[in-house]
Amino acid sequence: MDRLISKIRDIPDFPKPGIIFKDITPLVKDPAALKLSVHQLMQPFLGSEITAIAGMEARGFIFGSLVAWEMGLPFIPLRKPGKLPYDVQSVSYDLEYGSAVLEAHIDAFEPDDKVLLIDDLLATGGTAKASCELIEKLGAKVVACAFVVELDFLNGRERLDAYQVHSLLHF
Amino acid sequence: MDRLISKIRDIPDFPKPGIIFKDITPLVKDPAALKLSVHQLMQPFLGSEITAIAGMEARGFIFGSLVAWEMGLPFIPLRKPGKLPYDVQSVSYDLEYGSAVLEAHIDAFEPDDKVLLIDDLLATGGTAKASCELIEKLGAKVVACAFVVELDFLNGRERLDAYQVHSLLHF
Repeated sequence: MDRLISKIRDIPDFPKPGIIFKDITPLVKDPAALKLSVHQLMQPFLGSEITAIAGMEARGFIFGSLVAWEMGLPFIPLRKPGKLPYDVQSVSYDLEYGSAVLEAHIDAFEPDDKVLLIDDLLATGGTAKASCELIEKLGAKVVACAFVVELDFLNGRERLDAYQVHSLLHF
Repeated sequence: MDRLISKIRDIPDFPKPGIIFKDITPLVKDPAALKLSVHQLMQPFLGSEITAIAGMEARGFIFGSLVAWEMGLPFIPLRKPGKLPYDVQSVSYDLEYGSAVLEAHIDAFEPDDKVLLIDDLLATGGTAKASCELIEKLGAKVVACAFVVELDFLNGRERLDAYQVHSLLHF
């Protein structure tokens, strides 16, 4: 995975002092590295029961839609509040300061969908856990979550212990 | 294009009374229709001088990254303010009420890049025009803009008259 690691740029003190942000823009700028990352994200799920791919706004739209494309499956966007135009289901979840909301259309999933959730980064797992709750509120089943980068020291994986978790790079 | 039209859902009175919103979520949920739309978006530019694909947050990330993937070119995200972690260039532009800002990393483009801008929808052209200005501020050249849907009655194409404009569906 050295090829991928070299495409993740460390940005110190973003979004605030003491945080080292993992910048994925060099990865999406390199077609060969992006291809490797997308194929590695989907690799454990080839030939599996997965029927739909969900991705969170906004970087999850990039990796999620590419995994869906390559697997020939529907892509379902999970969005920030007020962005989806049709009737929505929503979940709210706690952030370090305050809270956030995620929404999906009420007809986003089919009742028997087995969903793979995709995002660029697993940190504390708050957004991913809320995404899984949202998908399950809509009657579908979350099978697994896959991330390009996992920040092991934040233990986000523990909050996702009901699901298979697959990450390409660990920091 | 009937196959694509059937996957664009009209939502009346969103985001406000009198507006009919063109919802692309049924399109991204249908792998065959999505494949058709992405291949039609890129078709005029196959074998062209294009060297990079830019897409605007957030729906432009879906279609932009898929076009970049299929063309084997870099994908460059143009983002809302405060989202990109590295040093940025920005443009502000007027909306109906107030204004908005778009940002890109200062090293997002190479100096000789020829850019194809992708978004789901061309309405008044304000966001697309600002995106082109941002790309040019960063030293690259915008060659063309491609959209899944164009709202002809809003004349957005006139604001993009310096560029080739390609839209799949006209309303």
